Amino acid sequence: MGELSERSGVAIPTIRFYQREGLLPAGRLTSPNQAVYDESHVRRLGLIRAMVEVGEMPIAAVGALFKRLREKDADEYVTLGLTQYALVREPEQPADESAVDELLSELGWEVRAHHPARAALASTIATLHRLGRPELVALLRPYALAAHELAEREVPMLVNDDDLDEKAETVVLINVLGDAMLGALRKLAQEDVTTRARS
Amino acid sequence: MGELSERSGVAIPTIRFYQREGLLPAGRLTSPNQAVYDESHVRRLGLIRAMVEVGEMPIAAVGALFKRLREKDADEYVTLGLTQYALVREPEQPADESAVDELLSELGWEVRAHHPARAALASTIATLHRLGRPELVALLRPYALAAHELAEREVPMLVNDDDLDEKAETVVLINVLGDAMLGALRKLAQEDVTTRARS
Repeated sequence: MGELSERSGVAIPTIRFYQREGLLPAGRLTSPNQAVYDESHVRRLGLIRAMVEVGEMPIAAVGALFKRLREKDADEYVTLGLTQYALVREPEQPADESAVDELLSELGWEVRAHHPARAALASTIATLHRLGRPELVALLRPYALAAHELAEREVPMLVNDDDLDEKAETVVLINVLGDAMLGALRKLAQEDVTTRARS
Repeated sequence: MGELSERSGVAIPTIRFYQREGLLPAGRLTSPNQAVYDESHVRRLGLIRAMVEVGEMPIAAVGALFKRLREKDADEYVTLGLTQYALVREPEQPADESAVDELLSELGWEVRAHHPARAALASTIATLHRLGRPELVALLRPYALAAHELAEREVPMLVNDDDLDEKAETVVLINVLGDAMLGALRKLAQEDVTTRARS
């Protein structure tokens, strides 16, 4: 376990905690006091770190996701979907989703009816209306086109990954760190455009 | 004040609290017990709501921003910058910014040296390296190009606004709700791309 801790960068008490919570499979016992851990354990710890530290997912949500992935006998497609869905925060107040349905059908996107990002998107649209700024809803379409172009680059990055844990980690990083990178880059780009417009 | 509350959708005790905290200018006194509020008060309340409810900015940060805007005798350009900067969360650990400097100079963007989104971006890049996933840093460039295309649509929306408070509100909404919209749309687009690749 000392070696696993060194290779993964996760402290031994934290590894023990993850094991007790059912997030990390046991090692193969070679004697009553000695367990062997392999590459799959290192990868699983990387995935847990990404979810907990980067995605700020509660431990219980990570456990629930792993349980669902096992039950579903997950392939690549199921892993992408379930991991992605686990990252979406439920909006506090459910909002009317008809504007989202309309946009998705206009764009011709194939998205499952229970994808939780539909509700998240509906809630942001409702907030713009509540604040009396419906004209900003016009940004949805250019945002959607940009998101789709980026997705065409992102999804092939999953295919290169060796196993399902690595694929799930990539989904977390591309979405959580990707949102953070885009948020920062948008602000920098806005400053560039404003500076140029001024000079 | 009852009318101001009705028109802005903000409860009277909350309006009083904002006044005590120096976020909302006093009304024009018409008698010792009667103050008149105008359109600028309604707009200021809209801006505070956007910052506090949507941007999740602490009241103290909103107060500090208004103070800086007053001190700077803000024009459009200063308002955009200061409001945007106030929305960026400082990363917990400062990271090496050389990759960000390099990217910005490659792109030829005119961005001030102290823009806080530089540090935020550097911190996400450091996290990818720490997690052993440097290949995902390759997404920075397509993200930057997408962000710039969107900024060219976003910045002109500010110009249409009547006054500085409305401009500041637009900055908050475009950044905070824009990040949320893009995050949701990226997940939906990824599902569409994956579904098509599978069929």
